Amino acid sequence: MDSVIHLVDVLAVAVFAISGALAAAEKKLDILGFILFGIVTGIGGGTARDLLLGTDTVFWVSDNLYLWMCIGAAVATWFLAPLLTSLHRVLLWADAVGLALFCVLGTIKAQAWGASPLVAVVMGMMTATFGSVIRDTLLNQEPVLLGPEIYVTAALLGSTGYIVLDALPATAALAMPLAIALAFMLRAAAILFGLRLPKYGKR
Amino acid sequence: MDSVIHLVDVLAVAVFAISGALAAAEKKLDILGFILFGIVTGIGGGTARDLLLGTDTVFWVSDNLYLWMCIGAAVATWFLAPLLTSLHRVLLWADAVGLALFCVLGTIKAQAWGASPLVAVVMGMMTATFGSVIRDTLLNQEPVLLGPEIYVTAALLGSTGYIVLDALPATAALAMPLAIALAFMLRAAAILFGLRLPKYGKR
Amino acid sequence: MDSVIHLVDVLAVAVFAISGALAAAEKKLDILGFILFGIVTGIGGGTARDLLLGTDTVFWVSDNLYLWMCIGAAVATWFLAPLLTSLHRVLLWADAVGLALFCVLGTIKAQAWGASPLVAVVMGMMTATFGSVIRDTLLNQEPVLLGPEIYVTAALLGSTGYIVLDALPATAALAMPLAIALAFMLRAAAILFGLRLPKYGKR
Repeated sequence: MDSVIHLVDVLAVAVFAISGALAAAEKKLDILGFILFGIVTGIGGGTARDLLLGTDTVFWVSDNLYLWMCIGAAVATWFLAPLLTSLHRVLLWADAVGLALFCVLGTIKAQAWGASPLVAVVMGMMTATFGSVIRDTLLNQEPVLLGPEIYVTAALLGSTGYIVLDALPATAALAMPLAIALAFMLRAAAILFGLRLPKYGKR
Repeated sequence: MDSVIHLVDVLAVAVFAISGALAAAEKKLDILGFILFGIVTGIGGGTARDLLLGTDTVFWVSDNLYLWMCIGAAVATWFLAPLLTSLHRVLLWADAVGLALFCVLGTIKAQAWGASPLVAVVMGMMTATFGSVIRDTLLNQEPVLLGPEIYVTAALLGSTGYIVLDALPATAALAMPLAIALAFMLRAAAILFGLRLPKYGKR
Repeated sequence: MDSVIHLVDVLAVAVFAISGALAAAEKKLDILGFILFGIVTGIGGGTARDLLLGTDTVFWVSDNLYLWMCIGAAVATWFLAPLLTSLHRVLLWADAVGLALFCVLGTIKAQAWGASPLVAVVMGMMTATFGSVIRDTLLNQEPVLLGPEIYVTAALLGSTGYIVLDALPATAALAMPLAIALAFMLRAAAILFGLRLPKYGKR
């Protein structure tokens, strides 16, 4: 089970690193800018989570694989991005996949460190959103987080969904993939159909 | 004494959470946006303080009450904000109350962890200002911190005031409320009368 | 050797504090704004490094000298900045010196805590750039980091240069000054001659 989590974790880091590198492409940075934003976006959320949980070491400090994945994903993006018709579209979808993976992984890691369900949900949401917030803040862009479509809600669904599914005997074995799918489907629906919650003042 | 500090701490978190939710209202976010900014603004300053002090656990990770206060304050703001005539005015005053409470609480907690008076003062100022800096940076607004009126100075007065009053036998028993009052009165005067320090280049 | 590193470290903090105070001058803040930006810029990078490495205490929490250097540098800048013809020019050069010192110092400290060479290089780059990123983000300015001229590359040269030079018997004794000089010369050439890497999309 731990090796599955590790694999999904590495994948999530790589996907977010791609979204960071695509944001660097939108700003027309050089290849080191791609790598920098790949690293910061890829590991940002998990770093915040580990610092707040007080884990013994931050995950990428003790395991070089994560940094190499970020660097590899950024370099690959540098060469492949010119083939894309819409950078921003691909960035949005990479961000959505990363969001779905990280909200569940962050919740799992927080629970493993003894956090209460409430704290675990907040940690899941933070892991999922922090990387993209850093990416967008550094690039001086409106954070995806503040966009009109459902975003934080999808992370919340993934985090709480995992906790509920994990607690039910019938679904515990599949809690991780099911919760990831729930979060991704909600975010995907939000992108495709412009789903949104009622905004303040529009009532 | 510890239970008084805990109570004031929870109050300060709630007040800052309200200021965060009001900032979300100004940006016309949805209710999860209110909760998100309530949490980030409410716990941001204390989180930075605890990470820098190296406390065993960050305060809200080991005590669910803080997160519930943030969520409750944000939801209440969602329903009550439409009754306000000026969101920004109330935000400024909630921020001022939070500033006064947190600069003293941050100093007290840093001293309790063995920090030198200089470090305790810096921690107090950081606890008081970090939450609002995150709030304003995420919303891409000019930080209150950089506004023309006295702000950091009020936090400095509260932090140093506490250390001085706490060291004097005559005032030690009342050091906390007196220092909070000093910081609040200076910030209140700054808002009401436009008090400011001389700016660079205006000499 | 340790006392040399400590000295260079204090110097680097002071130089970055000056760049922070100069940024405050550009924004026409008051003297506390100078001190605040002096502190945040001076200690920001090293603070991020220490938190990520999980050192026992953050460097400036256990040694008051760093904060005093930041405060002194900021106050001196307040009085001396009016004598400068171009604030921004001096800021750029102070930033360049700080960058060169911190990328090597961050690498050294990370290695001393047992980080792998890859992590040590990333820590060096982070130490060198984080302070200026906070400075520019708080002031809502385009980060120097994203400027067209070579910046991160200079930090990368200093970090990797140190690791290579330190591993070679012929140069190990002089690895620190040599690597600092390499990083500084590359950044200086970038400022003077507008050196840049090829940007994305300009191929």
